[in-house]
Amino acid sequence: MQRALSVSRMTGNRSTFPEWYQAVVREADLAENSPVRGSMIIKPWGYGIWEELQRDLDRRIKETGHQNAYFPLFIPLSFFAKEAAHVEGFAKEMAVVTHHRLKTVDGELVVDPDAKLEEPLVVRPTSETIIGDAFQRWIKSHRDLPLLINQWANVVRWEMRTRLFLRTSEFLWQEGHTAHVDEADARAETMRMLEVYRDFAETTLAIPVIAGEKPENERFPGAESTYSIEAMMQDGKALQAGTSHYLGQNFAHAQNIRFQSAAGELEFCHTTSWGVSTRLIGGVVMTHGDDDGLRLPPAVAPRQVVIVPILRDKPEDAEVLAYGEALAKALGGQTVFGERLRALLDIRHMRSADKRWDWVRRGAPIVVEVGPRDAAGGQVSFLRRDQLREGEKIASRVMARDDFVGAAAAMLSDIQKALFAEARARLDANIRSDIKSFDEMAEYFGAAAEDDDEGAPFKGWVRAPWSRPTGEALEAVDQRLKSLKLTIRNAPLNQGAPAGACLFTGLPAVEEVLIARAY
Amino acid sequence: MQRALSVSRMTGNRSTFPEWYQAVVREADLAENSPVRGSMIIKPWGYGIWEELQRDLDRRIKETGHQNAYFPLFIPLSFFAKEAAHVEGFAKEMAVVTHHRLKTVDGELVVDPDAKLEEPLVVRPTSETIIGDAFQRWIKSHRDLPLLINQWANVVRWEMRTRLFLRTSEFLWQEGHTAHVDEADARAETMRMLEVYRDFAETTLAIPVIAGEKPENERFPGAESTYSIEAMMQDGKALQAGTSHYLGQNFAHAQNIRFQSAAGELEFCHTTSWGVSTRLIGGVVMTHGDDDGLRLPPAVAPRQVVIVPILRDKPEDAEVLAYGEALAKALGGQTVFGERLRALLDIRHMRSADKRWDWVRRGAPIVVEVGPRDAAGGQVSFLRRDQLREGEKIASRVMARDDFVGAAAAMLSDIQKALFAEARARLDANIRSDIKSFDEMAEYFGAAAEDDDEGAPFKGWVRAPWSRPTGEALEAVDQRLKSLKLTIRNAPLNQGAPAGACLFTGLPAVEEVLIARAY
Repeated sequence: MQRALSVSRMTGNRSTFPEWYQAVVREADLAENSPVRGSMIIKPWGYGIWEELQRDLDRRIKETGHQNAYFPLFIPLSFFAKEAAHVEGFAKEMAVVTHHRLKTVDGELVVDPDAKLEEPLVVRPTSETIIGDAFQRWIKSHRDLPLLINQWANVVRWEMRTRLFLRTSEFLWQEGHTAHVDEADARAETMRMLEVYRDFAETTLAIPVIAGEKPENERFPGAESTYSIEAMMQDGKALQAGTSHYLGQNFAHAQNIRFQSAAGELEFCHTTSWGVSTRLIGGVVMTHGDDDGLRLPPAVAPRQVVIVPILRDKPEDAEVLAYGEALAKALGGQTVFGERLRALLDIRHMRSADKRWDWVRRGAPIVVEVGPRDAAGGQVSFLRRDQLREGEKIASRVMARDDFVGAAAAMLSDIQKALFAEARARLDANIRSDIKSFDEMAEYFGAAAEDDDEGAPFKGWVRAPWSRPTGEALEAVDQRLKSLKLTIRNAPLNQGAPAGACLFTGLPAVEEVLIARAY
Repeated sequence: MQRALSVSRMTGNRSTFPEWYQAVVREADLAENSPVRGSMIIKPWGYGIWEELQRDLDRRIKETGHQNAYFPLFIPLSFFAKEAAHVEGFAKEMAVVTHHRLKTVDGELVVDPDAKLEEPLVVRPTSETIIGDAFQRWIKSHRDLPLLINQWANVVRWEMRTRLFLRTSEFLWQEGHTAHVDEADARAETMRMLEVYRDFAETTLAIPVIAGEKPENERFPGAESTYSIEAMMQDGKALQAGTSHYLGQNFAHAQNIRFQSAAGELEFCHTTSWGVSTRLIGGVVMTHGDDDGLRLPPAVAPRQVVIVPILRDKPEDAEVLAYGEALAKALGGQTVFGERLRALLDIRHMRSADKRWDWVRRGAPIVVEVGPRDAAGGQVSFLRRDQLREGEKIASRVMARDDFVGAAAAMLSDIQKALFAEARARLDANIRSDIKSFDEMAEYFGAAAEDDDEGAPFKGWVRAPWSRPTGEALEAVDQRLKSLKLTIRNAPLNQGAPAGACLFTGLPAVEEVLIARAY
């Protein structure tokens, strides 16, 4: 059964992807730019998604034996100088605290020149150096290993061109830091956390990803090996959704992280680090959004079922509200994804049609409307956000109230699966493995627009044979790719024996890599 | 039944309170100083307490209608200049970011002088100004009010003398910020959150507190009224454990936070702010710690029951471990304080006696030991941390395993109540209301030590009549109190009519206030 609803499409659609993205972030009320250059304000609905995401990932991090801790925001400048490759990679754009006091001069508030710090403090862009310094003090013996630590924190990397969630000067993330007795144990940890990220992205965020190893030129500064999970956005670009690094003994040497082995020898630890950030919220938007706004995977929707009461400033309003409250309570007693279902009765002072569209744009998985007729008839009308339209019509359904309560959890599970299946199909259909030469690839992607690639037509990824060049040969590949605004995303794990010659060097391939434009 | 245990008392005891506090923080493995001046590292056990505390308080904040959001770490200098009293109170010691890039010069990493910011950025000491700026954009109509926002964040206030948890340059906190249509609604919010804090401190942290209003000279910079909850530490000093401020229209005027009223007029909002921080962990230590280390209220203990297996590198170890695992699982199936009981089987490579004392010092509420005899006999030996000793002996008990599992939740509830009752009795017994003059009070507290008051003998608080002087008269009182290192903590809520003359002015009292040395 259908009920006609007024249509109120969002501004912008996916054919102009960057504008569409901004419109979804704005109209789903996720975040906004702040008056502080490059820093965003994460609004309650966006932060609510972060809280759900964080809770789920935090559980996974703890289940794999890690403990949370908290380390200083500020890192002495000298700490960065210790690991040469790390400096090289990060030393460029960081916020630096140089003074510790303000004062008023002639009625104007200024930085007090007498309060200059002896050593400047860098606002952490990542915490390998400051956490490594603690590890150096904490670790004495092989019995202290593995040391498995995670931190939830804000970090700052000064950015000139920012985009909400995807690239901001300040962002929120978690960073895992671990120390091990040997390479095998540290590499096992690196892969374990990569797999935690893969499963988390696919199961919780409903974002299909490809896990693999980054080529040498895309490694984290100071790492021996960097792995990533890569997701395909609806404009065909890749989003690096999480990284896991085997750092070898590089940081251990730089920071003297040593342990006494079972044999009594002093040895350097092998360390790892791994992280995901608020950019995942951008990934959710660009994977699941549609022309009506955001569609949230139920597992991370702050509210999974929203009930909009149809009120008319009449005496029967009380009955409708009571009916809605009882419904919210009954839904809250249901279990979905192993937790209480998150239901909300929206009693804001707004027109109910505006509320409904507000929740559609925010991506609430199920939006229920209850009016006097529903209350009297013991039924509910509802929308499934993933099946919003049938042609031009809005697909509103009606169910008996108790049937709906009983079916809600299964419906949310279905929505989670449907969003994943849709994204999985898009990923699978848009990786080309049939490209035979660099020129053919260049033609496929087309020349990058002069200044940026906004509004570029959809191009998926290319999977191509790769001979793993190094040094100058790698540099040459990097330059050719850059001219097309392309990067090698990763070499997927568990691939079969490669066939044919490297697309870049013509030498026999040792593996295949994914090539794409990226965020 | 008793079992003899080796005794391993902690370094330091409460007769030398500051050293004792440091020893507990160190030996309970809560936190340590970092190489960054004034910033601490919160270690996993300390951070675990913060996570439990945060989860409980976050639930209370949401249940009272607030939503979490996230605002920038950096605040433009000019924002501070807007609210005069706020500048005056906060402008002194803040971390200031002046540059956004480093560079390498002659092999040395330095701040790039070409990357100076046009406007310096202050690392937030509190967020009234940056959140008020967002409120000014978000609020249009009375329908948008009340706007009830909370943020969990790190903040920085440059401190010269620091003490772990109690006073550090960087700390973690939550800060609530709300806007309302009128004074009555904003004042109701201020008092509601004060009550949330009071109940949270007493119920969850088992810290008895006195809620009341601060005198004018102790108000938050820019506030019309500041309320606090004050707790008595075991050295008799007061710890301000949470504050709630009615900010009037001061910040609304400074930042143009206005709304269109129902009558169509543009009016300024009334705002509030309120916060608690990681210093609460210091409060837990100083309220509940004893000469054996920390005692944690079970509601915030990261592990409520810890099982230490007695292993002897013999074949029967496997049986002991299996017994311990099954016990941990059975305990994890119990419910306490409305949540799953948090049990841990400690399988670290350490002597079991060392493990036991480690958990005693960390304050785990119940420490169980299981050896081959326990496994064979279906029993457990355990300590209750709040009843550790009987005379010089350790009070170890034995119970049948199933009885213990069935009794654990009630025992944890008992421990929570016992810790609160002990602290409540100390608070009640140590507030003197019989002091008749300033000189008598000065004599009671004694002269403050020359440089600091470390090792001062226990002195509780004084409750005295107060005429609420203002201006110069208040300034004079403040100076007299400062000479004794005393402050007025607050005027307790719901007090009866005051009797007698003000201890300071001799004028008729309008209320009574608490006077104490404080952290």
